[in-house]
Amino acid sequence: MNEIPIIENVLKLNDDVAADNRRRLNELGVFTIDLIGSPGCGKTTLLEQTLRRLSGEYNIGVIVGDLATTRDAARLHRWCEHIVQINTDRGCHLEAHQIRRALDRLDVERLDILIIENVGNLICPVGFDLGQDVKVGMFSVTEGDDKAAKHPHLVCLADLILLNKVDLAGAVLFDEAQFNSDVARLNAEVPVMKIDAVHGRVDPWLEWLRNSGLSHRHTMTEAMLG
Amino acid sequence: MNEIPIIENVLKLNDDVAADNRRRLNELGVFTIDLIGSPGCGKTTLLEQTLRRLSGEYNIGVIVGDLATTRDAARLHRWCEHIVQINTDRGCHLEAHQIRRALDRLDVERLDILIIENVGNLICPVGFDLGQDVKVGMFSVTEGDDKAAKHPHLVCLADLILLNKVDLAGAVLFDEAQFNSDVARLNAEVPVMKIDAVHGRVDPWLEWLRNSGLSHRHTMTEAMLG
Repeated sequence: MNEIPIIENVLKLNDDVAADNRRRLNELGVFTIDLIGSPGCGKTTLLEQTLRRLSGEYNIGVIVGDLATTRDAARLHRWCEHIVQINTDRGCHLEAHQIRRALDRLDVERLDILIIENVGNLICPVGFDLGQDVKVGMFSVTEGDDKAAKHPHLVCLADLILLNKVDLAGAVLFDEAQFNSDVARLNAEVPVMKIDAVHGRVDPWLEWLRNSGLSHRHTMTEAMLG
Repeated sequence: MNEIPIIENVLKLNDDVAADNRRRLNELGVFTIDLIGSPGCGKTTLLEQTLRRLSGEYNIGVIVGDLATTRDAARLHRWCEHIVQINTDRGCHLEAHQIRRALDRLDVERLDILIIENVGNLICPVGFDLGQDVKVGMFSVTEGDDKAAKHPHLVCLADLILLNKVDLAGAVLFDEAQFNSDVARLNAEVPVMKIDAVHGRVDPWLEWLRNSGLSHRHTMTEAMLG
């Protein structure tokens, strides 16, 4: 009887801090994304493209989670000044209190969009609310067409699914129909967007980000005026 | 002061059960491997090739961990009758008590080699002893050449590093020298083997398995005779 109450307390504490983060970010009108995917699915490459293409339009902040190294943050720093790296050592996911501390290190007031690049892991980050507005689940074709079916909790909770490295789909015999039907069975609402981040083919994602970010700011402004 | 003692108890309990598993498997002369890698790095494809090529020489058992689905076990069942699937639901790694229960479902007495395909995750499985003789860390070039540096705990603990999908190294601009130097910095002893499992180019791995498995059985037999 010892373990489960403790685990619940940890999650409850996390959720309380996440709610604080969400309130703070919403009051400032910062549209916040929790980006979850495998190691090497292309999260950092996607963010490089995103910053390169959108940094003239929006102030974008990035919080990067990794066990070790600051390589991702260094890659992104070329395009963006609002970056915090969180090194988790053995930690397999980010938690809300880490985001709270990271927010203190960012000029949050100046941001339009905040993207949290979670630790590369399709499992553990899913259960931890960080205070984000949306969760984005990212897969790549080189991981295989069975990965949506094998990670149902992420697919069920995701507001958007990105499928990256589609230029390699032929080389790895990726069965797109299988992947799409697994996603649809688990979450009938969630859109799936095919991208090829390394070659800059990320237009649907940028469009989604523009629309979601804009509509979010609009809703927040109305809520505050009303 | 509440959390850390509990976590230590969980790990201590796991280690005790792992020691039991190890004793049981060693007494039976079963060479046991804990195979750890990202989702989609090619673990199941490697096992398909291994079973296809070695099942005439050895009795090989496989324990497969996954959050959901029995797709991996179904793929392997074509080549092997000694298979147990463990579905962890939200569990991000296998633990020793799950292996103990799986051993009860296998004809362990008849096995020469047992391969445990851990849940696709480069982080959480690393800290949990299952009772294996060796840990094998598996990466694929499509994940990027920074993945050894980003997962130092796995590299430090691994007895062998497999680098899969080397046929795609050019397409994804994989920097092999960077990868190798990161591995060598973290673990000067560990061999790195390049393979291409989907096209059956896995000879170095099969040779390693033959040598390790044989020398293991030999050592165990001598220990029992002595």
